[in-house]
Amino acid sequence: MPRLRMRISMSLDGFVAGPNQSVDTPLGEGGEGLHEWAFALEAWRKPHKLKGGEVNPSTAVMEESLANIGATIMGRNMFGGHPGGWETSPPGRSGVPARPGEGKYLWTGWWGDDPPFHHPVFVLTHHPRPTFELKGGNSFTFVTDGIESALRQARQAAGGKDIALAGGAKACQAYLRAGLVDEMEIHLVPILLGGGERLFEGVNDLKGLEPVRTVATREVTHLKFARR
Amino acid sequence: MPRLRMRISMSLDGFVAGPNQSVDTPLGEGGEGLHEWAFALEAWRKPHKLKGGEVNPSTAVMEESLANIGATIMGRNMFGGHPGGWETSPPGRSGVPARPGEGKYLWTGWWGDDPPFHHPVFVLTHHPRPTFELKGGNSFTFVTDGIESALRQARQAAGGKDIALAGGAKACQAYLRAGLVDEMEIHLVPILLGGGERLFEGVNDLKGLEPVRTVATREVTHLKFARR
Repeated sequence: MPRLRMRISMSLDGFVAGPNQSVDTPLGEGGEGLHEWAFALEAWRKPHKLKGGEVNPSTAVMEESLANIGATIMGRNMFGGHPGGWETSPPGRSGVPARPGEGKYLWTGWWGDDPPFHHPVFVLTHHPRPTFELKGGNSFTFVTDGIESALRQARQAAGGKDIALAGGAKACQAYLRAGLVDEMEIHLVPILLGGGERLFEGVNDLKGLEPVRTVATREVTHLKFARR
Repeated sequence: MPRLRMRISMSLDGFVAGPNQSVDTPLGEGGEGLHEWAFALEAWRKPHKLKGGEVNPSTAVMEESLANIGATIMGRNMFGGHPGGWETSPPGRSGVPARPGEGKYLWTGWWGDDPPFHHPVFVLTHHPRPTFELKGGNSFTFVTDGIESALRQARQAAGGKDIALAGGAKACQAYLRAGLVDEMEIHLVPILLGGGERLFEGVNDLKGLEPVRTVATREVTHLKFARR
């Protein structure tokens, strides 16, 4: 049975995004600090078409998290959607032409027109929008009828592989509360954000997820949980 | 220079005590779960005059945290004080006789009349109370003029050794905000409490504390920070 595998970076004070998130600071103030451990890794940079990077104990964690994933589920904010406003984006923002010659672009997510997923992505939203495909096997499907529907669709699309739950906080909370997460990896980063989005807001039960291994570096502690 | 060394157990969702703390559940609902890793250790049980216990990778962490400590600072709740109400405690609760023949007992903290500290303890409180001494080198001094005064008194009493900052949340927050903590060890426990007292409430800066080592077991991840 394909598993739903959640992974997310969290600050020592429990935030997965800093305060005052906006279009220009989608991770909130200080929120990039949550991801520096990943940005530094060759194992992350390569699939993002960036040169260089380190090999360190986090490499195996990153490779494991990318392996055997056939579909990704994410929340609307992670895709980059303000309600309605990001349906079309002005030239200069990433996107694909909305209609020939119109000078408007469809917002295609923070990753531009060449996302690193290379498999179907399902975006939880209240705003219907047609599925679109980009090169490299990427497609984005907008799911408006709930988390179980998104999981069902992702399972069908994943071709027997696992499904990544990529965040953000609200999507993780919804799946955790429903007891649908089979594996959870918290990348705990030793910084304080002092505000923003808390990962476990409204979640008070790990629903059978138990610690299975920890990998620690100075920059991050990877806490992996799985269903018994 | 003697260092102020904070150590505290925290849940994955950032709480150091669970919801609905009371006299009968001083750690809040589920809060004992934060300390099971310690209760299981021979290195913890022995100073608490309990038999048995395990030796595991947390042993060295516990031994290190107990070593070279000449005084302890704690908050009022950790000592067990409800404002006024615990000045005297009825027979049956732990304590020492308030006055000969009176049948009332002075509250001496959760540890009864034989605490495991064996050095001077300084309790941050707004309620003045005379210092008292118990056997085994334990004394309790109640400090009403602030955290810097408590630290100064603890330094004087510690005889060149370090000072332990034992909690709770509010005491830790006050010293962290003031930048007075030289070493911080978070014992991160893989449980959710869903409510209670957050360790880092109102703290948004580690004030130069940087990760120096991590020790992980299935039950707890020990994250140690120190000033550069």
